[in-house]
Amino acid sequence: MPQPDTLAPAGAFSDAERAAVYRAIHTRRDVRSQFLPDPIPEEVLARLLLAAHHAPSVGFMQPWNFIVIRDRAVKARVRSAFTRANDEAASMFPDARRALYSAIKLEGIAEAPVNLCITCDRSRGGPVVLGRTHNRDMDLYSSVCAVQNLWLAARAEGIGVGWVSIFRDADIRAILGLPDEVVPVAYLCLGRVAELHTEPELQARGWRQRLSLNDLVFEDGWGRKGDLAAGAAI
Amino acid sequence: MPQPDTLAPAGAFSDAERAAVYRAIHTRRDVRSQFLPDPIPEEVLARLLLAAHHAPSVGFMQPWNFIVIRDRAVKARVRSAFTRANDEAASMFPDARRALYSAIKLEGIAEAPVNLCITCDRSRGGPVVLGRTHNRDMDLYSSVCAVQNLWLAARAEGIGVGWVSIFRDADIRAILGLPDEVVPVAYLCLGRVAELHTEPELQARGWRQRLSLNDLVFEDGWGRKGDLAAGAAI
Repeated sequence: MPQPDTLAPAGAFSDAERAAVYRAIHTRRDVRSQFLPDPIPEEVLARLLLAAHHAPSVGFMQPWNFIVIRDRAVKARVRSAFTRANDEAASMFPDARRALYSAIKLEGIAEAPVNLCITCDRSRGGPVVLGRTHNRDMDLYSSVCAVQNLWLAARAEGIGVGWVSIFRDADIRAILGLPDEVVPVAYLCLGRVAELHTEPELQARGWRQRLSLNDLVFEDGWGRKGDLAAGAAI
Repeated sequence: MPQPDTLAPAGAFSDAERAAVYRAIHTRRDVRSQFLPDPIPEEVLARLLLAAHHAPSVGFMQPWNFIVIRDRAVKARVRSAFTRANDEAASMFPDARRALYSAIKLEGIAEAPVNLCITCDRSRGGPVVLGRTHNRDMDLYSSVCAVQNLWLAARAEGIGVGWVSIFRDADIRAILGLPDEVVPVAYLCLGRVAELHTEPELQARGWRQRLSLNDLVFEDGWGRKGDLAAGAAI
């Protein structure tokens, strides 16, 4: 089969461009409390959605939809669903952790000017999708890649993003009117920010510390430590 | 509860920095055929792994491990597992699609100097994880965010990445020796590239076209078209 005639030179970025990509990656935060009330300009939101739409997807399935939520009544229903689930969540933690858990603000649904649900339509592309024949979750993973594209683009735009995951699935489905074949993969809060935490907020609050990357790298098989892992570079 | 004292100014990037982030997002490709045989310098691989490790994770769970595979014998076993699964996959497509499916190269396992399996340890952080109380898949999604961070960083470094998903789960588990609680989320092929396709390869080959973003955006609920979606910006 001939190669399609769409290859073009594509090497490494300049040092400055590369640094910008790493800056987005390393300074991105999960935002709950820093949202400013300013509206997000339509052209900025359009660029963020376009970035999400250019995520990789299994078999070029593009299983995502983007539900932009600005209606205060819809947000209020979502926030109620969060509160109900979060009360259930708090009760699952041992006593020693529950007080800290309940003190941590975990969402900015009402304050963020835009909420965004990124979904996965599991039926898109028909019953057999290239690359999804053996791992049925690949479509969900594609939608998650869209989330991360949007999150990094948002950092560059000065827009903070918070991912709220503490909901009963049935509540979000009912509020947003999702068909059965559509999974609400991520419920995001978006708004302009002027400040971000310099480290993950859960670390700053003493909930959990960053692990050593060195401990997480293996070579050629699970549990096998090699030269890379022993190096000083990571 | 007082705010932790780690807030710092964090606004939008400069126009040039923002353009670099979008360049990574829009020119990233799933690579199967363009890998050069050059080794990936250790410091580059270390930067890519650090980018992955700075992905968002539910409850700061950091459920990922990184298995770096350079051993030719391990790669050969993985490639055999792919071939077996891909033969099964081809048989699932209707006749009209099977010839095209079988003609598309879907992996560069042997040619890519580095293979990388990014996993998710579902037991990390104990039985109750903040943010994962109601959606048990959030840890898998965290590992996918690590994949996408690495993929974008790789684009900036001039490293191509291909995600191979056509395996029987049991084969990859056996080859890499994964414990039961560890899920192989992504099997990636990495190598330096000098050329990339200017559009997704599956589109260039006529497998599937990019959808209109406009058709994928709703406002305040499923199926509701609003002003944003009607705008010319996307």
